[in-house]
Order: sequence, then structure tokens, then C-alpha cells
Amino acid sequence: MIIIMKPGAARENVQAVVKYIEENGLKTHLSEGTTTTIIGVVGDKTRLTECGINSLKDVDRIVPVTESYKLVNRKFHPDATTVKVGNTEIGPHTLTVIAGPCAVENEEMLVNIARHVKACGATMLRGGAYKPRTSPYSFQGLEEEGLKYMQAAGKETGLATVSEVVDLASLEAAVKYVDMLQIGARNMQNFCLLKEVGRVKTPVLLKRGLSATIDEWLNAAEYIISEGNPNVVLCERGIRTYETATRNTLDISAVPVLKEKTHLPIIVDPSHSTGHYKYVTPVSKAAVACGCDGLEIEVHHDPARAMSDGPQSLTFEKFDELCRSLRPLADLENKKF
Amino acid sequence: MIIIMKPGAARENVQAVVKYIEENGLKTHLSEGTTTTIIGVVGDKTRLTECGINSLKDVDRIVPVTESYKLVNRKFHPDATTVKVGNTEIGPHTLTVIAGPCAVENEEMLVNIARHVKACGATMLRGGAYKPRTSPYSFQGLEEEGLKYMQAAGKETGLATVSEVVDLASLEAAVKYVDMLQIGARNMQNFCLLKEVGRVKTPVLLKRGLSATIDEWLNAAEYIISEGNPNVVLCERGIRTYETATRNTLDISAVPVLKEKTHLPIIVDPSHSTGHYKYVTPVSKAAVACGCDGLEIEVHHDPARAMSDGPQSLTFEKFDELCRSLRPLADLENKKF
Amino acid sequence: MIIIMKPGAARENVQAVVKYIEENGLKTHLSEGTTTTIIGVVGDKTRLTECGINSLKDVDRIVPVTESYKLVNRKFHPDATTVKVGNTEIGPHTLTVIAGPCAVENEEMLVNIARHVKACGATMLRGGAYKPRTSPYSFQGLEEEGLKYMQAAGKETGLATVSEVVDLASLEAAVKYVDMLQIGARNMQNFCLLKEVGRVKTPVLLKRGLSATIDEWLNAAEYIISEGNPNVVLCERGIRTYETATRNTLDISAVPVLKEKTHLPIIVDPSHSTGHYKYVTPVSKAAVACGCDGLEIEVHHDPARAMSDGPQSLTFEKFDELCRSLRPLADLENKKF
Amino acid sequence: MIIIMKPGAARENVQAVVKYIEENGLKTHLSEGTTTTIIGVVGDKTRLTECGINSLKDVDRIVPVTESYKLVNRKFHPDATTVKVGNTEIGPHTLTVIAGPCAVENEEMLVNIARHVKACGATMLRGGAYKPRTSPYSFQGLEEEGLKYMQAAGKETGLATVSEVVDLASLEAAVKYVDMLQIGARNMQNFCLLKEVGRVKTPVLLKRGLSATIDEWLNAAEYIISEGNPNVVLCERGIRTYETATRNTLDISAVPVLKEKTHLPIIVDPSHSTGHYKYVTPVSKAAVACGCDGLEIEVHHDPARAMSDGPQSLTFEKFDELCRSLRPLADLENKKF
Repeated sequence: MIIIMKPGAARENVQAVVKYIEENGLKTHLSEGTTTTIIGVVGDKTRLTECGINSLKDVDRIVPVTESYKLVNRKFHPDATTVKVGNTEIGPHTLTVIAGPCAVENEEMLVNIARHVKACGATMLRGGAYKPRTSPYSFQGLEEEGLKYMQAAGKETGLATVSEVVDLASLEAAVKYVDMLQIGARNMQNFCLLKEVGRVKTPVLLKRGLSATIDEWLNAAEYIISEGNPNVVLCERGIRTYETATRNTLDISAVPVLKEKTHLPIIVDPSHSTGHYKYVTPVSKAAVACGCDGLEIEVHHDPARAMSDGPQSLTFEKFDELCRSLRPLADLENKKF
Repeated sequence: MIIIMKPGAARENVQAVVKYIEENGLKTHLSEGTTTTIIGVVGDKTRLTECGINSLKDVDRIVPVTESYKLVNRKFHPDATTVKVGNTEIGPHTLTVIAGPCAVENEEMLVNIARHVKACGATMLRGGAYKPRTSPYSFQGLEEEGLKYMQAAGKETGLATVSEVVDLASLEAAVKYVDMLQIGARNMQNFCLLKEVGRVKTPVLLKRGLSATIDEWLNAAEYIISEGNPNVVLCERGIRTYETATRNTLDISAVPVLKEKTHLPIIVDPSHSTGHYKYVTPVSKAAVACGCDGLEIEVHHDPARAMSDGPQSLTFEKFDELCRSLRPLADLENKKF
Repeated sequence: MIIIMKPGAARENVQAVVKYIEENGLKTHLSEGTTTTIIGVVGDKTRLTECGINSLKDVDRIVPVTESYKLVNRKFHPDATTVKVGNTEIGPHTLTVIAGPCAVENEEMLVNIARHVKACGATMLRGGAYKPRTSPYSFQGLEEEGLKYMQAAGKETGLATVSEVVDLASLEAAVKYVDMLQIGARNMQNFCLLKEVGRVKTPVLLKRGLSATIDEWLNAAEYIISEGNPNVVLCERGIRTYETATRNTLDISAVPVLKEKTHLPIIVDPSHSTGHYKYVTPVSKAAVACGCDGLEIEVHHDPARAMSDGPQSLTFEKFDELCRSLRPLADLENKKF
Repeated sequence: MIIIMKPGAARENVQAVVKYIEENGLKTHLSEGTTTTIIGVVGDKTRLTECGINSLKDVDRIVPVTESYKLVNRKFHPDATTVKVGNTEIGPHTLTVIAGPCAVENEEMLVNIARHVKACGATMLRGGAYKPRTSPYSFQGLEEEGLKYMQAAGKETGLATVSEVVDLASLEAAVKYVDMLQIGARNMQNFCLLKEVGRVKTPVLLKRGLSATIDEWLNAAEYIISEGNPNVVLCERGIRTYETATRNTLDISAVPVLKEKTHLPIIVDPSHSTGHYKYVTPVSKAAVACGCDGLEIEVHHDPARAMSDGPQSLTFEKFDELCRSLRPLADLENKKF
């Protein structure tokens, strides 16, 4: 941590900061410039309630030097992590395609979709049973019943399954039926839920919050891992910006940024980020070319009659085309698909 | 709901949309322009899974005509709501100042702060016992112990109390000890939690999500009220933008926009929105002049040693000055303070 | 400037950075932490092409210590500036209300509006003659003819006048006819135009760019002043965010932030920031209570027939009410209005 | 255009809107819902000063049905445009790589860089002679001298050349020396400059404004084409968001969105969007896989000593690697490179 004092800070105010830091058991290192004094802090900064310093006189600004996350930090864990999910995996050697409907509607439709996406190359099935919806009057999901259908469809096809959890009750149900827990964008900083999924061993797909910085997202992953569950996969699904041509703005650069900052696998969701099926294929190809470890894609046998997020779902035919166009890209990245 | 077809849409595609809508028990109203056909939908739209339509051929776009929220909507409830909290109230006739520390640290400090803010004119005490923090390694709050101190400080001073809840456990504790439950920005779309606070009668202070639109925020309030708890107060606390001079960007225009769209009271939090004590006073004055029904302000006896959010806390002296400067502004707005 | 090296940076890479800086005639100051080395740079940083350093090995990040703007910086010019415009002024002792139509439509309407706004307390008349419009097919303004009407209306009423310039030709015309030049949001970083207005003595009203940071805005003002024209007034007019309830999001906190960072006067434009006349009055009151030095407000005798920006224009009656509500607020701020 | 009235709008207010529209020579089409009346407007809407309607009583909102841009609109010009630049072209059948330094520093360096990028597969040379810089104290470019070096380097290597213009003077110089004019992000809505480049025949590379919507960007292109210059190429270069891990956020989805909305070619600039050379290669690959028609990439023989934007420049070696990795991706897209 570095503390930048205001230009012409009074000597006694500089000394007050130094004293404050040293009282907290840390060392300081003074650097006096022509107009500005800078105080470097040496030692274990977790002892400091850093924000307190900001209130001391003549302090201009505090600059953190090291990230607050450790377990997810590639600086300390240089090798890429592979997360095993059911009988498949997400990591540096595979392109894992997760596909399925936004919401589970009934068992028959789910098995039907599962068979199709498997035939195209998907190794995981997605399907929401607990749906967080903006309006209380929208369809909220089949809940535990939906999870049972997920399990059935997984058994039937051999696909690993992932479904969203939204609270302790849904988490307790989900660990019984599915292979991976999804934390949705709206819950990325629901720290209670993060801690709960940190206490089970089921792998977690952690979606980026709608306006979360990459640092906040990595700190959210740190919550899960620090509770004991190392099986975390990150999922970029678009961020909120002023642009309305797409539902959200996919932050494609987040893929290489994350590859540098963390050892965790990274998945891209082109369906929620663009919000329209027309853009799903080109954006999926971009994500794979950029080095992501997998995709999460909405597929529905009849998008016009989907109970949730129809406009962004691919038909069977379009999903088939997409998978065919991904194959050579996966090859170029040395990823099995 | 209006459906705008693409220019030159095929007649059979227009008919397919009409048929789809009528199959769902609604009526349509066709308007054929020189290049574009528009289909108005008449009837109860909640029967329609609206997003399905977007997948039909030649549909360009769907324009909602009415808001999805009803209970919070001023169009249907023109009179401003007053929410009673302990022995005070939040509504059109008062300027309710809620003040206190970001986090409850111990009972003595809390009672000390409570006495001071009461002397200045505050009628409510804030204090966090369950703290959602970006990093798992930051101070997480005193939990139930903190709530007990809140209760004690409330009894000691006669101030009504508000504290944040983050999950079912903290909610069950909080209803026993405090007069109002706060839902923080990160939980604004934690729909499970919204439903839970909707099932109690304790008033709720619902903070705006970091990147929530006003419509999403009102839908979140609708979740609470539709479960049976009508005692909701909204709190604008800044939104996330590209500007970094302040911690967030206070959306001051949200105050008159909300006054038009909803009958619920609206509070402004200048501490979290600006992130620095220097800006709290001018921004508080702006909020009152703009017509807000109250303020939530962080006050600490020794900001440099606060365990959370020190830089944005006012000292006793500064809070005193602030309250004095608010008095004539409250008078101009015919609000008791 | 501080250079933060990566954790465990190689000694020779640290030395390479030190050498690079010293070759550029500056001194360095090394601070070696437990994991991280920090290099302080002492001396005149304008000699350094700072971005080059970022490419040197093991450099993690560069932290600027001082702002790049000097002439507009309050650290070096603590006293608030007053800018004289025609026979009025903008500065710490007045609340200057600038009012008038978005676009000049004809002389009669302009004189009519000018008389009315003067009667309510405005001391300046606004009116666009060169209109930057998103679409090439929208009304583009009366150009020089419009400026002549501005001059006539100014003479007739004694109001000082301000009108937007968009290039060298409009600038050459405007200096002949109006008392103040406006640089619009879209031209805030049109550096050629900034330099040109820096070469005349006519006061300049510099609007904030749609997504400009406060630092970029102050650097834009620095461009004007560094060319020799010190008469710059800043105008906050809302920034672009994801929220669509208002046309832009007024950054009210920018007022106190600017009061701290610069000595230049600051004006707020509630008309363009909100985009709707309904919100103009509450937002204007907020701006005055927050300490701004003036307001720029659109007024039209018949908003429904305005040729530009009708929905945000106040009628005569509403402008009259607004001015009456501002008076006690100006008094509280010790500002003449 | 559709006008949505408020729920329960008075009959006379509906009639007033209808009358207003018909007075302007247009037809209306009434659609009365259970709570809401909607008025469709049929005919040539350019006759209407649309914003006026917003001020009429009981009008809730106006929904545009057709885009304001025509000449750039793919609905009316379905075939993709190919723009010829010097002896190369930008369009559907090629992947055009434009490479070179951010700023031209001297002739020798430029020819050196030009030779290298040509050997790797680039067919166009970029280099800034007039540099818009945030601070007036940063290096502003070699101006006409720099353009002469661009011409020399183009002749020497056979590369087509592109350089930024910032005002009429630089435009007049640039048409003499280079093959393509670049309009930078900060000037995307400098409508005077857009009209000027519309009056020459030299192709134009129009960068997206820092916070421009896709619609605003297409309207800016419409300005150029409507003045008579059809040779416009769009360049996505990242938009401003809250995320600071990259300099800007590349809006990768803009590529397929633009392919749908316009017939103009689209280029991606991974250097300015990410701001760091480390991310340029993965993001370039993403852009090509997504279907863009070209890339604009900063290359410098010695990034640490570049006079502008060093950190985002590729070395010769890295540019060589990048081009090799792009080749198979271009093949997959059936694009010559």
C-alpha cells in the first residue's frame, strides 16, 4: 500500500500517518518528492483498516499495491485449474459446451433438448429450476421438480448438469440432483450464498455481476474457495453499459485479462450477453478464438413458445450449425471438442 | 404491448403473430403504415410469454406500454405513502435523517454516536451488524451481537433503528431487535430475500442496486409489497458509472423521477454515493432541495479509526453543521425536521 | 509519478526502469517492500513519455501523483475566479441564470423569450444558431442569421448572450455578435476548436463531454487557458449511463468535486441532463443548494412547436415559478440573484 | 412513429395530438386499448418536429419505428460494400490489416515499421500526424511533415496509408498525402468535420465515439455519405464503461450488429480498445472469428520509447506471431489475407 500525501502536506501530518501505520505494527518508507511526499507501507496490510487512513489530514489518496484475492490469483498459482464436473471437465484442454433451455419446462422437453445438444457435441446440460425474474409476476421456475427433470435428463444422456441456486433451500436441493451449481449475475455479491456454496464440494459456475469489475468478481470467487470449495469456474455474460443494441455488452477482453489474473477456467455466455439468437453464433466464435474454456448457450426446441428468454435461444438447427463452426476454432486452440 | 413488424413484413408473418396472440386469449389491433405494420395487443398481457413473440418471423421489436409493477405505481395509487418506523415516520411531511456508523463496533461507541446524532435532529439510527464486503478478508460485522447494541442504543435515545439484513438468518434476528430492515445494493435483486422481507411487517429500506434501472428497482419493491409488506422506503445511493472522482455517481434526478412514478417515500444516501465526507454536505443539501423525504448519513466519532468506510463518515462536528444547513431547506420544502 | 513493479520483479528489470528514468533527466527513489518494489520519480515529469515505461519488463502499473492540468488547478490558484460576460458575471457571489430557446428560430420569438426571462431574473440569454444534431436530416440552425438575432435580443433587453460554436467559421462569426461562446458536449475534446477559442478573449462556456471524466474536462479547460483565454466557465450537463428514465444522468456530485479541484465557476444545465421539463425545477433547486454558480435553462414560448428539444423546455409560466423557488436558495448560499 | 398516451388520457388530449399530426400533413391511426390509447403516425415523418409532441398533454412516450439513417441502412442496401483504398480494399472478401505506429516520429522509423508490417501481411499503414491528446502538454504530432513521411513510406512499400484528420487544415493536407482519412473517436460527432470529409472522395475510416451508441455512429456515417462520399469504413475501438482492467471495453457484439444494420465494412482496433499489448492478439483473433473485415493495430520497433501509446504497441516479433495466428481464422471466414 502506498499513501500519497497532498502537495505541501504539513510535516506533522506526514508524521501522524507514519505513527498511525506503525501503531498498527507495520513499517513505513518515506519518499519525499519536490512537491509531494509518498509513504510506502511494508508488512501485512490486513492489520490495517485501510480506509481509516483516508481520514487523516493531508492524505490525498491511497494506492493498493497487491490484490486482495490470493487463492484465485495466478501470481501465486501459475498453473491453470481443471474443474471436473460429472463425467466431463472444464479447463485448458477442452472446449466445454453447456447447452439447454433457459428454464426447465417439463421432463419431456428437457430430455428432447438434451439428446439434441449431446448429438451436436455438448457435454453439459443447462436448465433453470429457480428463476430470478425482474418482475414478481413473471414465471419463477419449477423449483425442486425442475431439478429432478435435470437429473433424469442427465442420466438419460450422460450429460453433466448445471442449474442455478438462489438461496440455501435451492442449494440444498440442487446438490442432490445436479453436477454443478450456478450462481447468477444478480447473486454474484450475495456473500451469504457464496459462503454456502463454498461449504459444499459441488463445482460452481460463478457468473459475473451485471456491473461487477473483474476484481470484484475474483473476490467473489475468493469467497467460495476460502470456505473450502476450490471447484470454481467463471462465466462472463455481458456487462451493463449505455448500449442498447444488445441486451448487455459482452466484455470479450475479460477472457485474456482473466487468463492473466487467475488460474480458474473461464466460460462465456453469448446468449445472455447479446440477448438475441442472431448474434449468438458470431459471438461464440469470437469467444473460442479468444481462448475461453467453454460456452454456455441457450437452446430450445421452439423458441417462440419458450417460457423464458425465447428471443435469445437457438433452434436445434442453428445450434447444430454453431457447433460445426466451432470445431475448427477449437482445434486451432488445441482444445478438445 | 405493441409489436413492430419489420418493413415489408410478409402478410403471412403478420398473420402468424396475430394468431399467436389470439391463441393466448388476447385481442389485436392492426395498424398498417406505408412501410411498417404495427400490432397493438389489447387485454391482460400477463397471459403472454412476451419474449416468445420476438422469435416469430419478421418481428422487429416489442414495445411495452404499461409498467410491469402495479402496487408501487403512482398511476394507480396517487397519494404519497407515509411509512411509520418506531416512533418516527418517513413520508411527505418530514425530512427524516437517519445517521450512525457504517458498522456497529461496540455498544459504547454506538450509544455515544446515537446521542450525538439525536441532539442534532436525527430521528433514526443506522448501524451495520451484517456487513457485505467485497473481500472475504475484510471485517464482516458483529452479527446478532451488533443488533443487540442497536436495540440498546435505540432504547437509550428513543431513536428508531435500521440495520441491514443479508439472508434469512440475519432477517430472523433483525426483526427481533430493530425497527427497520435495510436491503443493501448488492441484494436489491436477491429475490428470495425480497420475498422473505415481504412476509414480515417490519418496514424495509430498499437500496438501489449498483447498476439497477429505476424500473428494476420499482420491480424489486413490488416483490416485497406483493408478498404482503407495504412498508417500503426507497434509498438512492449512487450508481456505477465510468467516473471515478466519487465512489459512485449519485443519480439526483432519480428523486423527481421516482416522485412521479411511485407513491413510496425516497431517501438519499450521500455517504455511499460520494464515498468521501467532503462531498456529503453539499450533496445532502441538493437532495433535500430536490424533494427527497430523508437522508441516510454515516457519522463516526473517530473516522480514522472506523472499522469500515471511514473516509465517508462525518465527524460529530461536521454532522452538526450539516444538520444546521439542512433546516432552512427542509422549511422551504414544508418538511418537518 | 510512482512505478509499481510486479511482485518478485528481477533486480535487473528494476535497474532498467531506474536507468530509463535517469536517462530522461529525473531522479528516482526506491522503496523495497516485502514482495514489491516501488520506484518514485522525482522532478519534471513532462520530460518523460510516461507510457513507454509501461512496456519495460516487470512493470506492473504507473500511478500519477499530480494532475496534468496546472492553470485550472485550485491547488495552485486557490481563489475562485469570476468571469465577466457582457454586463453580468459568473462567479462565487452570484447565481447567474442563463435562459432561452434551444435553437434560435426567428427574431421575434427570441426577443419575446428574452424579455420574459429577464423579467424573471435571468441575466443571460442562450440560443443556438449552429446546432450539432445526431441526424443530418434534423434542423441544423439559422447560422449567422441566428447570431444576429441574438445580438439584437441582447441589445433590446440588456441580457448578455451565449451561443454555441462548432468550428472556425462559426467562431469567427460568434465573436462579432455574442458575449460568450459555448463549446458543446460533443466538441469538448475537439482540441483544434479548444485552441481556437483559447486565442480569442471572449468568455467560453465549456460543457462536459457525454462521457468525459472530470479530469478530462479540466484538461480541456486547460487547453483553452493555456492558449491565452482565462475566461472559462464549466457546465455540467449530465453524463451517459445505462439509466434511460432521464436523457442523461446529472452528476450532481461534480459540483463539489469541481469546487475542490478548480477555481473556475461551474454552471449546471438541468434541461439537457434530464431531457424533460418536469424534472427541470427540482434538479435546478438541487444544483443551487449544492453550490453551483449558475444554471442554463431552456425556455420556449410554445414548447410543442419548438424546432429542437421541445420536451425539455419550460413554458414562461413554469420558468417564472422556477425562478421564484430559486430565490431563497440563492440567499442561503449568499449568492445574488 | 407511434405515440403512446398515458393511461386514461382525456379524449380531448388524444384529439389534440391527432390534430397536431394532421396539421403537419400526416395521417394517424388510433388504437384504443383497455387502459391506453396508441396513435400510429403514417407518412413522411421528417415533416414533424417530433419532440414537440412530447410536450402535448397526456403524451406518455414516442416510439420511433424506422431508423433515421437511410444511406448506410442495410434494409435499403442489402449488398455489402467494398471500399477501395490505394491499391487495396476493405470489404467482405478480405481481411485488411492496417498496422503502424500510433504517432509518426520520423521518416526512418516509419519506413522501417512499414517494411516489417508489409512482410507480415498488412496491406495498409497507419500513423498519426495530428494527435488529439487529453492534455495540452502531451506530444501533439508532426503535422504536415508527418503526412509527408506517410506518403514516402507508402510509396516505398506499396502500402495504402491512413492518417487522422482533426480539422479543415489537416484535412486539406491529408488528402494530398494519404489514401484514407481517419476520424477519431473524439470527433465522431464533430459534424462540421464529418461534412467536410463528405465533400472529398478520399475514403474515410470512422472510429466509434467513446460513448456513442451504434445508432449515433451510423448517423455519423450518414452525415459523410449524405454529403457525397460513399467510401466509409467503420472502426470499433472500444467504448467507455466502468471496467478499468482494460483502457476501454471492446464491444465485440457490435460486429454482428453492424453486419445486420449496415452494408459498410467494419474494422476492429484491438490496440486502443484494450490499451495493452498483452491483450491485442487474443482480441484480434476474436474479432476475425466474429466476422470483421479488418484490424487496425499499433506496431512499434521499440514500444518503450514510443512517443505515444507505447504500452499498447506490438513489437515486430509479436506482430509477426499475431499475423500467423490470424491466417487460419481468415481462411475459415473465406477472407483473403
